[in-house]
Amino acid sequence: MARVTDRRRIVRFRLDGPPSRREDRLAGEEPLEIRLGARAFTVTMRTPGEDFDLVAGFLVSEGVVSEPGEIISLRYCAGVDEQGQQTFNVVEAQLRPDVPLPDTGMERHVYTSSSCGICGTASIDAVRKSARFEKHDDDGAVDLAVLASLPERLRAGQKLFDRTGGVHAAGLFSRDGELLCLREDVGRHNAVDKVVGWALRAGHLPLCGTILQVSGRASFELVQKAHLAGVPMLAAVSAPSSLAADLAEKTGITLVGFSRGNTLNCYAHSHRIRAE
Amino acid sequence: MARVTDRRRIVRFRLDGPPSRREDRLAGEEPLEIRLGARAFTVTMRTPGEDFDLVAGFLVSEGVVSEPGEIISLRYCAGVDEQGQQTFNVVEAQLRPDVPLPDTGMERHVYTSSSCGICGTASIDAVRKSARFEKHDDDGAVDLAVLASLPERLRAGQKLFDRTGGVHAAGLFSRDGELLCLREDVGRHNAVDKVVGWALRAGHLPLCGTILQVSGRASFELVQKAHLAGVPMLAAVSAPSSLAADLAEKTGITLVGFSRGNTLNCYAHSHRIRAE
Repeated sequence: MARVTDRRRIVRFRLDGPPSRREDRLAGEEPLEIRLGARAFTVTMRTPGEDFDLVAGFLVSEGVVSEPGEIISLRYCAGVDEQGQQTFNVVEAQLRPDVPLPDTGMERHVYTSSSCGICGTASIDAVRKSARFEKHDDDGAVDLAVLASLPERLRAGQKLFDRTGGVHAAGLFSRDGELLCLREDVGRHNAVDKVVGWALRAGHLPLCGTILQVSGRASFELVQKAHLAGVPMLAAVSAPSSLAADLAEKTGITLVGFSRGNTLNCYAHSHRIRAE
Repeated sequence: MARVTDRRRIVRFRLDGPPSRREDRLAGEEPLEIRLGARAFTVTMRTPGEDFDLVAGFLVSEGVVSEPGEIISLRYCAGVDEQGQQTFNVVEAQLRPDVPLPDTGMERHVYTSSSCGICGTASIDAVRKSARFEKHDDDGAVDLAVLASLPERLRAGQKLFDRTGGVHAAGLFSRDGELLCLREDVGRHNAVDKVVGWALRAGHLPLCGTILQVSGRASFELVQKAHLAGVPMLAAVSAPSSLAADLAEKTGITLVGFSRGNTLNCYAHSHRIRAE
């Protein structure tokens, strides 16, 4: 079976001494193929683990489903690698018959490309159109001290990072700072999808009253995922991109970046942050 | 036109004082549609700039081209946004008629998915099959002191990072430490594609005798890009994944991670590193 971590013999070089051989532990990365019924949908590279959550969250992020009943079943396809071992790298989702199947061409990435005028505005419109609920009128506030503490609490909860020193994380917190779900993955987007998929399957969508804290930067894609899951606040340890800020502004999401313990920047909808 | 950076009004919060409003500069992110002739090929979110290099590098990384003559022309499609401005977000590549067009389905991501047994080994085999040259018998060595200095030199060359505090970078260096090309982007993979595309168009492929230094982690995809461009050594500031290490091992690439100034780890083919 695919592994969450993997041991390797490495050579450690140092400027002030001779190289040494040692064992190191790496974060696992394996392809995951997602099938909708018998039809291939996509392949993503991910850290194995919580694969059903990943698939469910991916389907939410792509605007395919928004409630748990729309996914009838999730199962690993039987399939073996060259050593005859089940790979656990193909997951088949059965959707309820009334759920429209998404396109599998490039169009499925919600960018409009029907004209040559593809641009940020068109991308934002496409995301807004694909959203299944709009819950960002959710105007409860979070204390600045709680918000500022989340990166450290996310980091403290990262078991895989402790072992490998190199994976992304996404953590879902309640407004008073309770950790609801934390997921790690070599891909930032996968960590978020795993959190969203957990929430879908537990019946928690839309995620009103929550904060999604991520370990790295905030891209357009992460704001998109937050929006489709109904998350009113996305906080990143590092910088957002211009289009991430635009999408947050347009969809009513509070976007926080450079959350570094004592200071943080807010790029959109700062009214949800209570200073004092 | 799409912008490399973008100014925003933000609110800066601090635990030890009142919030302040200020102006901040964000790294630009816009969709880029890549067309092969009249046919849509893919859409990627990227920081505008060096778009022709990005397209050329992407085509190398996908195994479509490996020499400059295979791309007859690159041009922006005429197209406008809702304000009537040319978006510069669609690039059309004309390939030489004998260059086989790639599949545009999910298969183009070189993972084999014909059986349920999709796995890391199959992914590695697919990358190896798509490579157009194998130049990793290139066994020249690099001094440890040079290799250890590259992250700082990469960082020093990051103009966009200086202005925004948050973009990835890829730098191509010669074995004696000369910087050949540095590119920044909100996407790590785009920064590498821009470097590879620059090299293709300048007639430098395969990239024997070079080191590709990247700012973040080393994923499977980055090793794939290095391999298809003939780069013998990939160095990352942070951790590699298990499959990145596997692919480097199988394709003869020296893979370095956690390159932190005084120490660095080598995960494959350490013979190219000369420590005293």
